[in-house]
Amino acid sequence: MSKKSFPVSKVYGLLEPGPVVLLTTASKTKANIMTMSWYTMMEFKPPIVGCVISNRNYTFNILRATKECVINIPTVELAEKVVGCGNSSGRKIDKFKVFGLTQVTASYVKAPLIGECYANIECKVIDDKMVARYNFFILEILKAWIDPRSKAPQTIHHRGRGVFIVAAETIQLSSRMK
Amino acid sequence: MSKKSFPVSKVYGLLEPGPVVLLTTASKTKANIMTMSWYTMMEFKPPIVGCVISNRNYTFNILRATKECVINIPTVELAEKVVGCGNSSGRKIDKFKVFGLTQVTASYVKAPLIGECYANIECKVIDDKMVARYNFFILEILKAWIDPRSKAPQTIHHRGRGVFIVAAETIQLSSRMK
Repeated sequence: MSKKSFPVSKVYGLLEPGPVVLLTTASKTKANIMTMSWYTMMEFKPPIVGCVISNRNYTFNILRATKECVINIPTVELAEKVVGCGNSSGRKIDKFKVFGLTQVTASYVKAPLIGECYANIECKVIDDKMVARYNFFILEILKAWIDPRSKAPQTIHHRGRGVFIVAAETIQLSSRMK
Repeated sequence: MSKKSFPVSKVYGLLEPGPVVLLTTASKTKANIMTMSWYTMMEFKPPIVGCVISNRNYTFNILRATKECVINIPTVELAEKVVGCGNSSGRKIDKFKVFGLTQVTASYVKAPLIGECYANIECKVIDDKMVARYNFFILEILKAWIDPRSKAPQTIHHRGRGVFIVAAETIQLSSRMK
């Protein structure tokens, strides 16, 4: 893989603008992919992310049991596959095969990285107390990877019903915020 | 106000792409504004949002006590004020005065809407069990407002340290997802 390690302390800058992500998990029989927009950073150090995964999703029970996943960040070139993963279920198909995506072995978790995504974030579930009531999983970020060629990634941001904002122009302001 | 009511069932389409928002609260003495990127949709019906507010922020104790707030969504024209609100504290200044923003009376909560923001979402805290450990507040959306002239709002999405993606081009894909 042509990716390099990325400091976990900087991952918030990849996630807080709200790109659609692909969450990968691995059961004993196969790896799966879920399209997700409902997540938020929760802490800088250690870096913690919270995410909502419906209990109707195939991923739900796998994540609950294995407590491991990878947050993969796609860019606009993958938009059709992202929607395809959202429109289908791992109960019926092997999404890696159907959508022609590449499994890359992760360092700390059994769930695979998606090779075609420009960034990949290995996570473990550290708190599932909010799962029963809100389907809300709390994850600690263990390791992150980034494609060093990706300087201005055109992430996609879901506005509902298949409409996505495509990240393009950025502005720099003199902020003292992290 | 030239805004119209917006169905709370559609608010997820405003929030899940991850725009920076301005959270307003009101104590007995004054209204305040906080810049925020760490939040996520959690449920469609009733519409629920979760958000992280540091216990170092002036807003924290006010929200904990009053259990009411408004999520206001700014566009790029307000970017300097958004960063200004993030770089300062309501302990020291009146942000509405300093940044020249307009308080508009809300329908269900005492916290004001920010007139200059293209959308405003009135919320109440429905669950604070995660506040002690994660500074995580769970809000129910009560009412939403939108500027009907705002067809393609140029929201801003924080990538860290003052760099923002400016929403511009959108794409439409044939999604069966909400």
